[in-house]
Amino acid sequence: MTALQLLDYTAVFVFAVTGALTASRAQLDIVGFVFIASLTAVGGGTVRDLLLDRPVFWMADPRYLGVAAAAAVIVFFTAHLVESRYRTLLWFDAAALAVAVPAGVAAAAASGQPASIVLLMGVVTGCLGGLMRDVVCNEVPLVLKQGELYVTCAFAGAATALAVLAATGQPLPALIACAAVTFATRAGSMAFGWKLPVYKARPPRQY
Amino acid sequence: MTALQLLDYTAVFVFAVTGALTASRAQLDIVGFVFIASLTAVGGGTVRDLLLDRPVFWMADPRYLGVAAAAAVIVFFTAHLVESRYRTLLWFDAAALAVAVPAGVAAAAASGQPASIVLLMGVVTGCLGGLMRDVVCNEVPLVLKQGELYVTCAFAGAATALAVLAATGQPLPALIACAAVTFATRAGSMAFGWKLPVYKARPPRQY
Amino acid sequence: MTALQLLDYTAVFVFAVTGALTASRAQLDIVGFVFIASLTAVGGGTVRDLLLDRPVFWMADPRYLGVAAAAAVIVFFTAHLVESRYRTLLWFDAAALAVAVPAGVAAAAASGQPASIVLLMGVVTGCLGGLMRDVVCNEVPLVLKQGELYVTCAFAGAATALAVLAATGQPLPALIACAAVTFATRAGSMAFGWKLPVYKARPPRQY
Repeated sequence: MTALQLLDYTAVFVFAVTGALTASRAQLDIVGFVFIASLTAVGGGTVRDLLLDRPVFWMADPRYLGVAAAAAVIVFFTAHLVESRYRTLLWFDAAALAVAVPAGVAAAAASGQPASIVLLMGVVTGCLGGLMRDVVCNEVPLVLKQGELYVTCAFAGAATALAVLAATGQPLPALIACAAVTFATRAGSMAFGWKLPVYKARPPRQY
Repeated sequence: MTALQLLDYTAVFVFAVTGALTASRAQLDIVGFVFIASLTAVGGGTVRDLLLDRPVFWMADPRYLGVAAAAAVIVFFTAHLVESRYRTLLWFDAAALAVAVPAGVAAAAASGQPASIVLLMGVVTGCLGGLMRDVVCNEVPLVLKQGELYVTCAFAGAATALAVLAATGQPLPALIACAAVTFATRAGSMAFGWKLPVYKARPPRQY
Repeated sequence: MTALQLLDYTAVFVFAVTGALTASRAQLDIVGFVFIASLTAVGGGTVRDLLLDRPVFWMADPRYLGVAAAAAVIVFFTAHLVESRYRTLLWFDAAALAVAVPAGVAAAAASGQPASIVLLMGVVTGCLGGLMRDVVCNEVPLVLKQGELYVTCAFAGAATALAVLAATGQPLPALIACAAVTFATRAGSMAFGWKLPVYKARPPRQY
């Protein structure tokens, strides 16, 4: 199993958990859990592969969807054991982001894309699955949540991967650094309120 | 005309009717009817064809969009004749699902895909057009409606197609059985309240 | 630089401004501005290129995303200077539509597509970026706004392009006429209330 496949499997499982937790908030049945979990799990990677004109990863290997379905079933029967399903969802989502960004970076780098596209494929793979989940389930998208870093973490992680790759020429440390920076910035934003200044409407200047 | 084309034409027409009925609820003009009807009608099949890396069916034969536009115009001038536009929409949607699932199954089988992908292409083709319609028009997606079967019906129909195909080796009975099972389970859910148990939040166990 | 590239760059910049203005309404940070601006700017053209099975335009030339990011940063620091951000958004959106429709027409014509597909690619390229922006940011999609022309303007512009192309055989006047008709109809609708009759629910006829 390659590093990219391992990243893809892990991202699929962890994103599927977030999809299933969102389905639990919408009180769906078990097939609804599997549907939303699968959409979340493969959404970002599917857009990545369509953009890169590669075969879509889960079409080439349907076991990915088995992993997503298994995660959905586990959540269906165990979600009542956690104290706050929403906080659990947020932390799993942070973990999924931290795995999906390097998965996007690795796929784009393996396709021989230039650095700017590698950066973007990291952001796309990390952010779009969760965005689809939130749009379909009519939750406020996490990418738009005020006063929290989200897309910024994906950018920072992907940029770190590019820097480490340029410095060392080794893909593995680049992917590990990417995951670490993505997770650390996201976790810091959730735990300590790290944020960037947001746009504030001000009245037009008077002269 | 092949069986797949006939299924695609029928699914396009019936889904276009549901899109136009949704447009009538949003009080759009006739071009808005055509836009939403076309999006609904070709959305699922477009995703199917992009995933399968086939030419998109309505790009290869734009008459599909003529069919969708005709359905939109008919609904624009006749929707006031039906007593409940929402109930009419639900029944047309059930019929469209029952035609689109075998259309997805037939397209994937014709591309020589493995059984798991054939199953999924049935679900994708059946569910995604209506999902796009509901997300764009800001209706609660039918796939998420509590206490009703929807994705389950698509799964059941596609699984039936695979079973009949494996047993008989004949595509035509497989597609007919697929449509019948999809429609019967969806209609049973609407008429008699058939459903699966939904997730219920319970307080965490106390020890 | 070809006419198509010039149209694509202009559409990207102007749509990015509308995305950033929408981000300002959601009070996002600067990375959120860049994310929504980029999604809006390249959304329609990306769907166009996937449907036409061409390389996605901004993957082949990432400078497009630099343009979108620059627009987002400019708006982040200057949006407080305009009196009504929503009215500014509407007029930039009209300008973007008037550039994106000919961009879609030009791309489809360059791919040797038949007239009906050329027409549709104009509508798709013009309307889908803004639709994605509105769905993700949970605004009422402009394409669905009651009592205003929107998709109609894209249709009218694309049809004009086809008519001028058929009459003169020259692409440049066709693209200019397309932009002019799209903008004039959309501006007329916003300024003077031009509209088509909308669907009105009437009680079923009594016999």
